[in-house]
Amino acid sequence: MRRIEVLRLGHRLVRDDRVTTHVGLVARAFGADKIHLVNCEPSIKHSIDGVTSKWGGEFEVQLTEEWRNLVRKWKQKGGLVIHLTMYGTNLDDSISSISESEKDLLILLSAEKAPPEAFDLSDYNVAIGNQPHSEVAALAVFLDRYFGGQELKRNFKGSKLQIIPTAKGKRLVMAG
Amino acid sequence: MRRIEVLRLGHRLVRDDRVTTHVGLVARAFGADKIHLVNCEPSIKHSIDGVTSKWGGEFEVQLTEEWRNLVRKWKQKGGLVIHLTMYGTNLDDSISSISESEKDLLILLSAEKAPPEAFDLSDYNVAIGNQPHSEVAALAVFLDRYFGGQELKRNFKGSKLQIIPTAKGKRLVMAG
Repeated sequence: MRRIEVLRLGHRLVRDDRVTTHVGLVARAFGADKIHLVNCEPSIKHSIDGVTSKWGGEFEVQLTEEWRNLVRKWKQKGGLVIHLTMYGTNLDDSISSISESEKDLLILLSAEKAPPEAFDLSDYNVAIGNQPHSEVAALAVFLDRYFGGQELKRNFKGSKLQIIPTAKGKRLVMAG
Repeated sequence: MRRIEVLRLGHRLVRDDRVTTHVGLVARAFGADKIHLVNCEPSIKHSIDGVTSKWGGEFEVQLTEEWRNLVRKWKQKGGLVIHLTMYGTNLDDSISSISESEKDLLILLSAEKAPPEAFDLSDYNVAIGNQPHSEVAALAVFLDRYFGGQELKRNFKGSKLQIIPTAKGKRLVMAG
């Protein structure tokens, strides 16, 4: 089973709190195994961990201050590094070769301006369109295309809560 | 040509500023024509309008305090109302009939808890997976599936800047 981890760069305290939390929740919901948060408050880890403890699965959140070594080690072990950026080549041009590689993926995402090394250290700089939008959206669309929509049908083991999909209103049940 | 508009509900001042801006930028980049922002600061409209004036297209941002009338009028004119919510039925179950309807779409998105009327007034309550994640991601994946990826290849008329997709680094040129 391939491993998918996300590396969140450039978080700005307070200003990016909600967006970084959304990045973490999208990583979990769309099938990643772990997120590394660079220079983030512990409260963001607590929020995401809280969702995992209620809704299941084994998603991990790692607070860290150093990311270059993580990227280098990932490549030394044979994993691919994918940088999602509006400056990259089109998703359609790379998604097949990324999927077919069957390698572990480390996905880099920056809040606003990416550090120049992010472009150089990555195997693929991938654009989810060349318009400015959102790293939350970029991650979701990348993973949705990568998994061909199957990620939305996963079961999250050990959940305390479960939703019964419903045409009107809300149906939430205790799981298990 | 079908018209697609987004209605952003439940914005919380300051706390949701960045996320609401991301929702607006995703709406624009993924092919919607307009966003209605309920009880938002004018600074958010200014940010999104600033992106449109640099990067082109005719995306509109409307600040408003009332949304129920907008929804009712949309339905009276024969348009569909789609509410994106983790409690809804699966995207796969509804996306074909929504696309094939060829009707204008009004897409409702809430920050956190949706008002009960959002479920009742909508023609479709659609879940982008039944896990908690992000309305930014939900909107992007919905529009990506709706347009079958073609939205990422659109030209934005009148842009001052344009990106040349590149494997490494950044290539940004003045357009026109």
